[in-house]
Amino acid sequence: MVVILKNHADEARVKNLTDWLQSQKLMINEVRGEYQTILGLIGDTSRVDIDLIQSLDIVEDVKRISEPYKCANRNFHPDDTVVEAGGHKIGGGNFQFFAGPCSVESREQIIGIAKDVKAAGANFLRGGAFKPRTSPYAFQGMGAEGLELLLEAKKETGMPIITEIMDTAHIPLFEDVDIIQVGARNMQNFELLKELGHVNKPIFLKRGLSATLQELLMSAEYIMAGGNENVILCERGIRTFEPATRNTLDISAIPLLKEKTHLPVVVDPSHASGIARLVEPMAYAAAACGADGIMIEVHNDPAHALCDGPQALTAPQFAKVVTGVEKIREALK
Amino acid sequence: MVVILKNHADEARVKNLTDWLQSQKLMINEVRGEYQTILGLIGDTSRVDIDLIQSLDIVEDVKRISEPYKCANRNFHPDDTVVEAGGHKIGGGNFQFFAGPCSVESREQIIGIAKDVKAAGANFLRGGAFKPRTSPYAFQGMGAEGLELLLEAKKETGMPIITEIMDTAHIPLFEDVDIIQVGARNMQNFELLKELGHVNKPIFLKRGLSATLQELLMSAEYIMAGGNENVILCERGIRTFEPATRNTLDISAIPLLKEKTHLPVVVDPSHASGIARLVEPMAYAAAACGADGIMIEVHNDPAHALCDGPQALTAPQFAKVVTGVEKIREALK
Amino acid sequence: MVVILKNHADEARVKNLTDWLQSQKLMINEVRGEYQTILGLIGDTSRVDIDLIQSLDIVEDVKRISEPYKCANRNFHPDDTVVEAGGHKIGGGNFQFFAGPCSVESREQIIGIAKDVKAAGANFLRGGAFKPRTSPYAFQGMGAEGLELLLEAKKETGMPIITEIMDTAHIPLFEDVDIIQVGARNMQNFELLKELGHVNKPIFLKRGLSATLQELLMSAEYIMAGGNENVILCERGIRTFEPATRNTLDISAIPLLKEKTHLPVVVDPSHASGIARLVEPMAYAAAACGADGIMIEVHNDPAHALCDGPQALTAPQFAKVVTGVEKIREALK
Amino acid sequence: MVVILKNHADEARVKNLTDWLQSQKLMINEVRGEYQTILGLIGDTSRVDIDLIQSLDIVEDVKRISEPYKCANRNFHPDDTVVEAGGHKIGGGNFQFFAGPCSVESREQIIGIAKDVKAAGANFLRGGAFKPRTSPYAFQGMGAEGLELLLEAKKETGMPIITEIMDTAHIPLFEDVDIIQVGARNMQNFELLKELGHVNKPIFLKRGLSATLQELLMSAEYIMAGGNENVILCERGIRTFEPATRNTLDISAIPLLKEKTHLPVVVDPSHASGIARLVEPMAYAAAACGADGIMIEVHNDPAHALCDGPQALTAPQFAKVVTGVEKIREALK
Repeated sequence: MVVILKNHADEARVKNLTDWLQSQKLMINEVRGEYQTILGLIGDTSRVDIDLIQSLDIVEDVKRISEPYKCANRNFHPDDTVVEAGGHKIGGGNFQFFAGPCSVESREQIIGIAKDVKAAGANFLRGGAFKPRTSPYAFQGMGAEGLELLLEAKKETGMPIITEIMDTAHIPLFEDVDIIQVGARNMQNFELLKELGHVNKPIFLKRGLSATLQELLMSAEYIMAGGNENVILCERGIRTFEPATRNTLDISAIPLLKEKTHLPVVVDPSHASGIARLVEPMAYAAAACGADGIMIEVHNDPAHALCDGPQALTAPQFAKVVTGVEKIREALK
Repeated sequence: MVVILKNHADEARVKNLTDWLQSQKLMINEVRGEYQTILGLIGDTSRVDIDLIQSLDIVEDVKRISEPYKCANRNFHPDDTVVEAGGHKIGGGNFQFFAGPCSVESREQIIGIAKDVKAAGANFLRGGAFKPRTSPYAFQGMGAEGLELLLEAKKETGMPIITEIMDTAHIPLFEDVDIIQVGARNMQNFELLKELGHVNKPIFLKRGLSATLQELLMSAEYIMAGGNENVILCERGIRTFEPATRNTLDISAIPLLKEKTHLPVVVDPSHASGIARLVEPMAYAAAACGADGIMIEVHNDPAHALCDGPQALTAPQFAKVVTGVEKIREALK
Repeated sequence: MVVILKNHADEARVKNLTDWLQSQKLMINEVRGEYQTILGLIGDTSRVDIDLIQSLDIVEDVKRISEPYKCANRNFHPDDTVVEAGGHKIGGGNFQFFAGPCSVESREQIIGIAKDVKAAGANFLRGGAFKPRTSPYAFQGMGAEGLELLLEAKKETGMPIITEIMDTAHIPLFEDVDIIQVGARNMQNFELLKELGHVNKPIFLKRGLSATLQELLMSAEYIMAGGNENVILCERGIRTFEPATRNTLDISAIPLLKEKTHLPVVVDPSHASGIARLVEPMAYAAAACGADGIMIEVHNDPAHALCDGPQALTAPQFAKVVTGVEKIREALK
Repeated sequence: MVVILKNHADEARVKNLTDWLQSQKLMINEVRGEYQTILGLIGDTSRVDIDLIQSLDIVEDVKRISEPYKCANRNFHPDDTVVEAGGHKIGGGNFQFFAGPCSVESREQIIGIAKDVKAAGANFLRGGAFKPRTSPYAFQGMGAEGLELLLEAKKETGMPIITEIMDTAHIPLFEDVDIIQVGARNMQNFELLKELGHVNKPIFLKRGLSATLQELLMSAEYIMAGGNENVILCERGIRTFEPATRNTLDISAIPLLKEKTHLPVVVDPSHASGIARLVEPMAYAAAACGADGIMIEVHNDPAHALCDGPQALTAPQFAKVVTGVEKIREALK
């Protein structure tokens, strides 16, 4: 961390600051220039509150040099984390497909899709029971009943399930779920993250619509600091000025995250663009640049889907994507 | 709502769609062009799921013409809503200052600041007990104990209090709070919004960092649809590419929101820029373009603030802002 | 185009509008609802100025349904355009590598790099003679002399060259250049685009930092409407809130552009992220999702590069990218 | 400038770098930590190419501490610049209204509007002769003939005129214009900026749609470094994700620019939102937070305007804005 002091900062207040920094076990190297004095802080600065220092009136600016996250930091954990769930591995060279409908709607629907996507090559069944919807008048999901139907589909097909949580109060309902998903809108629901830090289950953490990669990693850090190190990150598109797609898939997030962290990185091309026709090429792009898995919305009958947006594929379309992704991964071996 | 059908869409499927739309009590006007057929839907389309229609493969595009919110819509409620809390009115020409520290830190601090901001012209005391912080290692607020201290400050000074909630499980703790704040990061925490729809207390809803105005209004609609019509909207800056400020205050949101909705609109210039020096000019801008109130972070001693970012003013600086705002409001009468 | 009229719009003014629209050879279908009247315009609306109609005070909103570009529109030109330059084809299944340094610096440098990238698999030599730099104090390129050196490199190696133009006054200097590049900052330099519409040479048009895909296509339309149909589009990253990369590569632009237009689409992963380590994975992503070519910055000696940013690869690194891209293209055949 | 070296950077290469930096007359203070070495550079770093240093493989990161612009920097020029044009002053407490139509359309129109806006309180007549339009099929302005009509309006009314330039080749045509405007799309047309540095006339420089404040100041620096110190900056809205307005007015840019530079700052609320109804409140906001002037589009007859977008006011509406702005400025004295 580098602290740039204001010109002619009061010496006594500077001493207060440097004393306090030293009490935080940081070494200080002071560089005095004609116009500015710079304090270089050496040591573990991840627990120093950058906003606090910035607020001091003797301080011009503060710049972080090392990252503010530790558990998620590849520097302190060079090997890839391999998350295990339902007998399958994610990360460290293990690639997985997560597929299923936007929402669970009925026993027939979810079991039907589960069988279809399993046959097409998916290892995990996704499906929403609790649905975050922009409008209070849109279908809000089947809730606890939807979770029951997912568990039935798991029993029927043997596929482990992943589904989204929206509130700390619902945690007990997720006991038999294999992976708990935190959606983009809850990426900074810090109370929820803290509670999930005490759960003994992998967490699938989606990047918020306007979250920087560092904020995504800080949210992972919330979960990991609580003791749960099984976090899977998911890039699902960010909000930009471009109106042609619902969001803009940030493809460079994949290699960048793989560099900064040891956690697996999965891509959701369905939500990233909101356009079914783009899922195939974007899934290929994600696989080509190093993703550890792909999550895709698949439906059985679009005309009756309750909340499948325009981003869902049919099972045969999904099967084609699986084949293409596997060819690309083979080619790059 | 206008539905644009694909070229050569299957007639039977189009009939299915129009039958279903009619069953939703919508009238349909069909316009057939050489290349496209357009269905104009007339009636209450606020409960029609636009994503569902978009997902149909006979549909090229769907465009909403009327707004998808009802309770918050000025068209259906032309008069300004005036929210009352702690004996003060907000909206409909009533302007209020909400001031106080970022976080409650101690009895002395909060009572001291409360007295200072009351003397300077504030009617509501703000202060965080539960704090949403990007880092798990930053100060997370005093929690329930902080709420107690706020209530003591209320007893001591007679100022009504406003403070932020972060989880549905904490609602009972907020029983004696005058206004409950929902922070930007929880603007789409839909479970929280639903529960707050059943609370008999004004809700102060901050715009999310990347939320459109329509999404903000849809989140207000969640609360109002539950029965709680006392919602105050707050513009606090959006995330853009500009690095010079923490966020970009969207000043045009104020007149636009006043046009679209009858709810009061308050501006938070402290969080909008994250720079204390900008609070005064931005508060003036907000007052000049029609805001119903301003929320400002005020501290007593910056060197000891635990999470006051660089955006907090001192009490005398705040007093100057109050005077300037009042002059502007007087000039524009 | 759909025109939504205001409630209770003056009948005489509405008639003026509909008369004028009919004089533009548009058919009008009027749909009257309880709250709104909608005019559906049928015919060639690409020449209708949407802003003009929007400005009328009887108009609530105008929504375009068909695209405002014609020459660039795939609907009117279903087959891929294949651009030919220097004996090589781009588009319609023909994939090309454009490689070379950020700036031409010396005879030795440019000929050296030209030989290196040719050996590694590039067919086009890129290199800047006129350089758009944010700072007036940064190296501005060698100008006309740099163009001469590029032509020498072309003579020496047989590689066709592509280089950037920054002003209409420089057009005569580009007579022997094979492809003229228009940089992101000049994408809406309309005077330049108009002049390039009269040049008998392919134009390589880079997307502006905050240009929508529609604006990119409208800029292509400027060139094409002037008579020059040989336009190559280039996605090179857009400006977003994410600070970890210089720009955010909009990977979905590739399949979307291929759908909307018949023009070839090339990707520049070097400028997209500004980080050399990301060029390889992002080039693979671009190839996997259907790009017609890749433009990459390659240098010979980073320690002496005058403006090579941190995004340039060495020739061996570039050779590795060529091999990887070819494997992916082979796998997806 | 602070250079952060990579762990275990090669000593010989580090020495090369430090020798070169010293040859640039910079003093170096080296701080060695356990994991990182930091070089603090002291002296005039405005001419150091940050990208060049960043590209070195021994460098982890470079952070600029002082600003890269000099002529425009308030640190080196503490007093406000007062620009004089046509007998009026802008900046340093002098506030001006620039008003007129989007485009010059005819002798009658421009003289009519000139008289109207003069009567309403404007001191400068604006009007476009060369128009940057997204579509090649939209009205492109009257060109040289439009300039002639503006000069006639000046003769008739005595109002100095401001109009936009789009190409270096047009500079001779602007000889009798009082202020030359550079539009948002040409803010980084560096060849144009360089030429305008040699013109003896004030330049009105509009911020690009996605330009940071630093980039805006660097573009001013291009003009000033050429010898023309009469630059007026204009905030006219930036591109964000919000679809409700054409652009988002960045109101905090005004106080921030006034802090960083001595140049006058004008606001264009018409283009900022693209909605006429918002011009009045946004003009008030701009005046309240310290702008040196306001530019507003005014038309005489919206039904016949050729390119007046929905952002133009009528003359009486403009007169109301002038009165309101003057009241606010009086109140804040």
